[in-house]
Amino acid sequence: MVYSETIKLKIKSQDFVDITDKIEYIVKKSEIQNGICTIFAVGATSAVIINESEPMLLQDLRDSLEKIASEEKIYHHSENAFSHIRSTLIGNSQTIPIKNGELVLGTWQEIMVANFDTDDREREVVVTVIGE
Amino acid sequence: MVYSETIKLKIKSQDFVDITDKIEYIVKKSEIQNGICTIFAVGATSAVIINESEPMLLQDLRDSLEKIASEEKIYHHSENAFSHIRSTLIGNSQTIPIKNGELVLGTWQEIMVANFDTDDREREVVVTVIGE
Amino acid sequence: MVYSETIKLKIKSQDFVDITDKIEYIVKKSEIQNGICTIFAVGATSAVIINESEPMLLQDLRDSLEKIASEEKIYHHSENAFSHIRSTLIGNSQTIPIKNGELVLGTWQEIMVANFDTDDREREVVVTVIGE
Repeated sequence: MVYSETIKLKIKSQDFVDITDKIEYIVKKSEIQNGICTIFAVGATSAVIINESEPMLLQDLRDSLEKIASEEKIYHHSENAFSHIRSTLIGNSQTIPIKNGELVLGTWQEIMVANFDTDDREREVVVTVIGE
Repeated sequence: MVYSETIKLKIKSQDFVDITDKIEYIVKKSEIQNGICTIFAVGATSAVIINESEPMLLQDLRDSLEKIASEEKIYHHSENAFSHIRSTLIGNSQTIPIKNGELVLGTWQEIMVANFDTDDREREVVVTVIGE
Repeated sequence: MVYSETIKLKIKSQDFVDITDKIEYIVKKSEIQNGICTIFAVGATSAVIINESEPMLLQDLRDSLEKIASEEKIYHHSENAFSHIRSTLIGNSQTIPIKNGELVLGTWQEIMVANFDTDDREREVVVTVIGE
């Protein structure tokens, strides 16, 4: 069985939005008991992160990404190369198992969507639940 | 339903090949309307990227990866440690949703295969479509 | 069809454990011939890697991660920010195709679980096989 929904959300530049509750509700609505849930962020400057949604940690993550792909650097690709590189490194898709109708997540694993673009953006996230 | 095909392609060292059209054609042939498409690059020095296939951006990406795992550095693992590390950071598998028989991708999201090895290589990519 | 098992294993801090044989055995038990196998590491300081399980290469990988998220640095998030950042960069989920009842992996592609936390930890890995 396949069940799918699209979430739309506004995200500030370089910010992260916790969508765990939304995903859990979609999994519940799907009535799928065992299988997987794939979360895909649409857009080449977005990403999906499964980690702790804690403001100071997210600042640390931004600092680490700044080392790899700095906002200040001059790139060949104009405007937002650093946004694309951050998106590529984190990745746009994550897949989480479902057991007994619930996502299997660790205590500090929350599902977040990142907007690495230079401007605030409305982002689409496609959630696909597959199983039985 | 499961439908699967393997793509073979020659890729130069540190280069990226856009396979979006090939994947779209496989999804069409699968006749699957709703589900997911998993793209897996075979080989420990390859990777799958979903981002903009624009030559200057890809040069910027190479420059960022050079900071993390430089081609020039001396490593413990001889020959191609930087190739393996780049592959590990980007990842070998990506999963994209399918809705109404089509891949859901943003305007600038293209599917590319990277060859991070020191030599040009023939790469295999396994495309698996699951759904109904 | 969906088949799922959870693996538990003790992993030292900053270490990697090869679970390829365990995953291959689960795929065999599932009796699924064609489909995908999703491997998910539970815990916000763990990760799943598909690459060569070679001690010197893994030391090189640790050295590269140290550049991005150093163990020595002072972070806003106290204690183990570097562990979370490493986990976020590598990722907690990987999906591998199954053909003719076997995982499709390259010669040097082994499946490893990483523990990036500051202490040795017991880790759970959920393996979900989907297909027919």
